[in-house]
Amino acid sequence: QAVRSLFKALMLREKYSKLAYHRFCRTTSQFLRSAENLIWNIEDEVLPDMLPCPAVGEDPYSMNNIPENLNYELKMRNGIVCVYEDGEALKNDQPTDLPYPDLETYAIDLSELLTMIADGPTKTYCHRRLNFLSSKFHLHEILNETAELKELKSIPHRDFYNVRKVDTHIHAAACMPQKHLLTFIQERYKTDKDRVVLEKDGQEMTLQQVFHSLSMDAYDLTVDSLDVHAGRQTFHRFDKFNSKYNPMGASELREIFLKTDNYLNGEYFARIIKEVASDLEESKYQYAEPRLSIYGRSTDEWNSLAKWFIQQKLHSPNMRWMIQVPRIYDIFKAKNLVTNFAKVLENIFLPLFKATVNPQTHKELFVFLKYISGFDSVDDETKHSNHMFSYRSPKPEQWTTRDNPPYSYYIFYMYGNIMVLNNLRKERGLNTFQFRPHCGEAGSITHLVSAFLTADNISHGLNLKKSPALQYLYYLAQIPIAMSPLSNNSLFLEYSKNPLREFLHKGLCVSLSTDDPMQFHYTKEPLMEEYAIAAQLWKLSTCDVCEIARNSVLQSGLSHQEKKYFLGVNYLKDGHEGNDIRRTNVAQIRMAYRHETLCNELSFIADAVKSEAMISH
Amino acid sequence: QAVRSLFKALMLREKYSKLAYHRFCRTTSQFLRSAENLIWNIEDEVLPDMLPCPAVGEDPYSMNNIPENLNYELKMRNGIVCVYEDGEALKNDQPTDLPYPDLETYAIDLSELLTMIADGPTKTYCHRRLNFLSSKFHLHEILNETAELKELKSIPHRDFYNVRKVDTHIHAAACMPQKHLLTFIQERYKTDKDRVVLEKDGQEMTLQQVFHSLSMDAYDLTVDSLDVHAGRQTFHRFDKFNSKYNPMGASELREIFLKTDNYLNGEYFARIIKEVASDLEESKYQYAEPRLSIYGRSTDEWNSLAKWFIQQKLHSPNMRWMIQVPRIYDIFKAKNLVTNFAKVLENIFLPLFKATVNPQTHKELFVFLKYISGFDSVDDETKHSNHMFSYRSPKPEQWTTRDNPPYSYYIFYMYGNIMVLNNLRKERGLNTFQFRPHCGEAGSITHLVSAFLTADNISHGLNLKKSPALQYLYYLAQIPIAMSPLSNNSLFLEYSKNPLREFLHKGLCVSLSTDDPMQFHYTKEPLMEEYAIAAQLWKLSTCDVCEIARNSVLQSGLSHQEKKYFLGVNYLKDGHEGNDIRRTNVAQIRMAYRHETLCNELSFIADAVKSEAMISH
Repeated sequence: QAVRSLFKALMLREKYSKLAYHRFCRTTSQFLRSAENLIWNIEDEVLPDMLPCPAVGEDPYSMNNIPENLNYELKMRNGIVCVYEDGEALKNDQPTDLPYPDLETYAIDLSELLTMIADGPTKTYCHRRLNFLSSKFHLHEILNETAELKELKSIPHRDFYNVRKVDTHIHAAACMPQKHLLTFIQERYKTDKDRVVLEKDGQEMTLQQVFHSLSMDAYDLTVDSLDVHAGRQTFHRFDKFNSKYNPMGASELREIFLKTDNYLNGEYFARIIKEVASDLEESKYQYAEPRLSIYGRSTDEWNSLAKWFIQQKLHSPNMRWMIQVPRIYDIFKAKNLVTNFAKVLENIFLPLFKATVNPQTHKELFVFLKYISGFDSVDDETKHSNHMFSYRSPKPEQWTTRDNPPYSYYIFYMYGNIMVLNNLRKERGLNTFQFRPHCGEAGSITHLVSAFLTADNISHGLNLKKSPALQYLYYLAQIPIAMSPLSNNSLFLEYSKNPLREFLHKGLCVSLSTDDPMQFHYTKEPLMEEYAIAAQLWKLSTCDVCEIARNSVLQSGLSHQEKKYFLGVNYLKDGHEGNDIRRTNVAQIRMAYRHETLCNELSFIADAVKSEAMISH
Repeated sequence: QAVRSLFKALMLREKYSKLAYHRFCRTTSQFLRSAENLIWNIEDEVLPDMLPCPAVGEDPYSMNNIPENLNYELKMRNGIVCVYEDGEALKNDQPTDLPYPDLETYAIDLSELLTMIADGPTKTYCHRRLNFLSSKFHLHEILNETAELKELKSIPHRDFYNVRKVDTHIHAAACMPQKHLLTFIQERYKTDKDRVVLEKDGQEMTLQQVFHSLSMDAYDLTVDSLDVHAGRQTFHRFDKFNSKYNPMGASELREIFLKTDNYLNGEYFARIIKEVASDLEESKYQYAEPRLSIYGRSTDEWNSLAKWFIQQKLHSPNMRWMIQVPRIYDIFKAKNLVTNFAKVLENIFLPLFKATVNPQTHKELFVFLKYISGFDSVDDETKHSNHMFSYRSPKPEQWTTRDNPPYSYYIFYMYGNIMVLNNLRKERGLNTFQFRPHCGEAGSITHLVSAFLTADNISHGLNLKKSPALQYLYYLAQIPIAMSPLSNNSLFLEYSKNPLREFLHKGLCVSLSTDDPMQFHYTKEPLMEEYAIAAQLWKLSTCDVCEIARNSVLQSGLSHQEKKYFLGVNYLKDGHEGNDIRRTNVAQIRMAYRHETLCNELSFIADAVKSEAMISH
């Protein structure tokens, strides 16, 4: 029974993943087919389109070669953007032949999963398997530690310092360490103090006037007075943490230095990000996936962000961009900026569909989207929602109360729109997007269930600690998890209690990321600091940290070409075949161990399902 | 009774400290005088002479202005170098009027202290006082955390990043991170591969030939194959750790790259140290006190080291040099390099006395000694000695067995010679040396008792955990302790169990140091990595880390002038008066708290001793 449930859960995830061009672990897929007595076929595999961009020699911001308009009609229906061939089709409500998700199916799938992970025998089974995985790895370590090390020593020219590492979870507005931000502000003050940088209450203000109004001399500024670093005060206080985004507690400085859409057209913010990018490029082996915000407050946000990106020339070979959408409908509603939840979704997604069907009329956004690899959903997960999500929940157009929709509701509508959009874009040969929400940092376990269906991969995942069944499912499906133990340490969970090490041992696909260097890190190399602390504290071996680095590349939105180069040409194959040790510095012994172990776990499920089917025949 | 013992112990330390020009906490001294009903007098205070060197505009290696020879006679007697006016005095055995220590007194003082710290009521008293200190600080934190932070925020231009930090304990042969060493080796190979770098079995070998003989291509070298990093394998294995000093396990590479006295005259070693020094200079606020080795194997070591230092121009404003003496008489004896232990001592100390009395005939060593701030005693403290140290132990001249003398014996003879030397040098207006042994990293608690008497300050001190009486004495005497939790984490004690945080809270004078960046650290800034990890893991406040940084400057061998500049002109005063917050970024609230608390603890002792004296009258 337990195994049957797990099988069903994996089948569900596979369905959702394929629909959205999300990745689904090949080995897992092969075992699912074998359980169904079907032949797995490589052609059935769905892969995201993360196109290498720009092409060699191409101007990254070029607006040539933009495809023709299709002149389709677009309309949001039940919170999902629908695509129509023409006005006629729109009138008859006959959308084009794309898969459209519906809330009812999702609600039912979700509730089925929720029942399953709460089932006693299933929990016991998963708990025992996880314990087994843990002990097995411990044994592997004792027996093969030296052999792994020997393998790594024999590989020329590759070590932990020159394997590729991707900072899989980092917010653009906090991507620079505090000292960097401080120096940047002071430099700007030195050169630009008489420049008008802000318009406040209709009054133009120079940088000097701004500092004057805050009764502060920029030269005297210190990281103490800047006060952007998290500390003991922020533990379990997400609100206090959020206010740390305001240098000196002054929203003016955030507006001037950390916003894209301000009096300076985001010039300062762009400059400091480019400084961070150039540090990454210099390091050569470090990459980052910074998040930029789209709020859904107004229809114009995308154009403005795209303009900023292109005008400020923000592309860097060592950065891939993500869009984060904060879950703050309730704030907009309270301010009367939107009438219902559908309006927020429309503001977020309609422009993307427009730029996809009619790129000629949305050139900047069209170009910008080439550099976006996915979407993130962000906010404090402990925030309580009064609404109990079910298939009877109101549709977004009917969501007019001041209450914020619950996490699972948000997640569904983000997934749904991304899914339709990806199908549309795939048809046009454009890059697709991954949905990579913050999930399981805190709050209800339901979050992790919704992401199990809808996400390509997640950030945090701490709460998997609390549900053996879900943890085991995340293992079986090899869902990548970007973990940030230093961030957790300041916000939700002490370092020593962080499950990263345990997850890694069991074989979950975990990577390391910084989240917010401005708030958490001390050195000039935040990602290395994150790795160093994990390695020191948990006594990770070189093979361990290189495995984490490899996972980070796998999880990232880097293109197929880049992954081939960084991991080995066969990286899509699982196990040691897919690993080029000369690129990854992960021992083949480790790769073989991981693969065999996963196959072993999956075979229990496949065999049980098969034999059950035989009996019932 | 307990208090009486503590009083006596402090009096003993004061005696030993004054004799050697070691520092003794001023506040403690004041309370000791008050207990004796005496007036404390600033003139009685003994301070080390750490002269600023070189003077502004002076060539650091200049051999001008070297004082005249005194033509004194020198002779080692009972393991201590004695100074004689002339041959006549030598014949009559009438040494000049310097204080000479004797083993008997030391052995008796030591055993008295040992009895005292084992006394039940004393242990209880100290344990209770330490608990009180801990709780009191916790209360202080709750009440004043915000006020301290506010104070720091209001200080212009000073924050954790630009307060001075001294790496108080670092070994020169491991002062560069592994990646730095790797790059250095590869660069040398690129430019010097045909250079003769080694003579082995009478055969000259080029760098290429050396790599060839190790069947290794320098270009293919990685940090994995270099294999100098400590890991799980080194925990509780000091022997394995020691072999990590050999890159690729090859003593040839250690010889070529990490030795001062080799075929290349230590050129490569000097170059890489200078690269580290230039990183420190660039950082502006970071200093280091690297240890160079003198073994006592032969009489020529000092000249050779001094020559290396001067020829390679190793002085850096951001470095102060220490000499480490490994406790390995047994190895030399086994190889028949020395006849008795006195010979080792003579090899170590006689050249220093010679260079002090007859500098004209030892110019290089005389100049080199200006840059030496102290001596360290190093080795695995867990090594067992068969000898039970007492006042009847054989004198060094009679120590002819193959057994290694015990720790306390070593320590006494190092202290004794440094003490006489300091008095001699003080008379001549030369800089004096501090004795700063490794102590309490492991092994017997006796080590910490001997250092309590003889050391200006110590490295490690972990075992203070095990003796409340000693820990309380180290607190009362404010003996600086250079702690290296990352080193401990790889060798002796897991990070989470490290007592640094607890010591800091109670008010012990602790600093942070790296010990061996080559073996332990990952980033380009090892000292910052050390601070970052401590701050993250223990959630230290800015005031906490700045207090540690201030302690590191206090503990260091930086000159009086530098300390005045880095800490405030009145830094010799205790409490908030001695603290210039604009320099140290340590809140005055914190300084006042520390001072009041120390005074309170000391007053119990002074009052009890006084009232006891009254009763007995």
